[in-house]
Amino acid sequence: MPAAKSQIDALTRRYGPDAIPAVGPWNPMIAALLEHRSVRGYRSDELPTGTLETLVAAAQSAATSSNMQTWSVIAVTDPAMKAQLARISAQQKHIEQCPLFLVWVADLSRNDRVGKAEGMVLENLPYLETFLVAAIDAALAAQNAVIAAESLGLSTVYIGALRNDVVAVAQLLDLPPGAVGVFGLCVGHAGPAATSEVKPRLPQAAILHHERYAPRDEAQHRAVYDHALSEFSRRHEIAKYSWTERVLARLGRTAALQGRDRLRAALETLGLPLR
Amino acid sequence: MPAAKSQIDALTRRYGPDAIPAVGPWNPMIAALLEHRSVRGYRSDELPTGTLETLVAAAQSAATSSNMQTWSVIAVTDPAMKAQLARISAQQKHIEQCPLFLVWVADLSRNDRVGKAEGMVLENLPYLETFLVAAIDAALAAQNAVIAAESLGLSTVYIGALRNDVVAVAQLLDLPPGAVGVFGLCVGHAGPAATSEVKPRLPQAAILHHERYAPRDEAQHRAVYDHALSEFSRRHEIAKYSWTERVLARLGRTAALQGRDRLRAALETLGLPLR
Repeated sequence: MPAAKSQIDALTRRYGPDAIPAVGPWNPMIAALLEHRSVRGYRSDELPTGTLETLVAAAQSAATSSNMQTWSVIAVTDPAMKAQLARISAQQKHIEQCPLFLVWVADLSRNDRVGKAEGMVLENLPYLETFLVAAIDAALAAQNAVIAAESLGLSTVYIGALRNDVVAVAQLLDLPPGAVGVFGLCVGHAGPAATSEVKPRLPQAAILHHERYAPRDEAQHRAVYDHALSEFSRRHEIAKYSWTERVLARLGRTAALQGRDRLRAALETLGLPLR
Repeated sequence: MPAAKSQIDALTRRYGPDAIPAVGPWNPMIAALLEHRSVRGYRSDELPTGTLETLVAAAQSAATSSNMQTWSVIAVTDPAMKAQLARISAQQKHIEQCPLFLVWVADLSRNDRVGKAEGMVLENLPYLETFLVAAIDAALAAQNAVIAAESLGLSTVYIGALRNDVVAVAQLLDLPPGAVGVFGLCVGHAGPAATSEVKPRLPQAAILHHERYAPRDEAQHRAVYDHALSEFSRRHEIAKYSWTERVLARLGRTAALQGRDRLRAALETLGLPLR
């Protein structure tokens, strides 16, 4: 079956015209996934009743390692609370604009309480492995919530800057030891000025390997992508910004981490020694 | 609008009859998310041409922190390679059965190569923060691939046991320093004996908080859930296993980590000091 024009269009938006991948199976759900864009401007309209519970049901339906369910989510709607979370997160205004801000918590404290109630010290809680499970499972859950929100015509954006000061977030949200907010998520109706274009990604050949890791033609892939992203930036009047420039700016100097270079010590403070 | 019977049915399957959450907005995409189940038995049939590329396009459409795209994926189909990965991952037979095994890689090496090509040492690569971004972004991407696969009638199961020996995985897959396989994913057509029932999760009240973290009635939620999960286990002839029993077995004793208690040292070996 030849690909529909809409499928080629979707792949062109996601990869640019010079890096369209092989055309495979397709359906409306996959088309919806490819249309994702992060939105950084919101109307203040409240969400329909029960939206939060539907998003959480979708989130809990994601896989979770050994069914441990080592995550929690805090729904923040109070303007004063959102203002404080925005202050911690580099003053991102959309945190205050959006009607629902979700804080996704890697949460070993609930399982710790289960152990204590049963008279057992859980030896595995202090390990890096267990924290990593919690963070990954929170991410799987949050991504399901994102898919569900977008299917309802809502928009979202992840807020990694919540990690600029995880101790302040924990104090604000009354998190017990063993729980840490790993990222935030704005949910709401996109404002009129919100970006309405899908952002291109690296060519598939740059990230997909077969049988073994074997990077090929990376300089060429990067040139193609730098061009696609510079064009995207130009169309959206973002300061001219290739991918290369962005990577160097974000990863080159420790100042760009905005405090997240202290994350390891902060997690220890929160009862997560990552042994 | 009153909830359709199918919506109540879906929520009942996910939470059991004693913990159905508030009924909110609903659509076929959300219904599909709630129907997720992990499948541990596969037919060997190959996947339709282009399936892998469609799954990767869905994966790359997930959000990625500052557009850094710090992940890669390795598509393993070779039976000898899958057998070796199964050996590392506690001999899980579905890794050998499934036609496509995806290894999701937290990959700081590609961005490192960008820095080197531009004559710049990227100061932020050795930090825990940057590894965590890579692991979370790999998880967001993988979850999109799972949603896409399920929408095509395929099944999946995440393989966290790949972390039992991340150094062996890195050697087998030729991973460069700064890259680590964080989990695997089986993809294929479910075999005839595969579980065909959604697994219940903790009540929403146990994981969802409003404004601040404030656990309430945890003993009661746990009792409801232990009952639901014991009933599920009984129907599937799994050794009688409440959630409490499972948490204590998985987190109580370090032996249950199957080597993952050495993850921190292993990551250092792989060039990820998590500063």
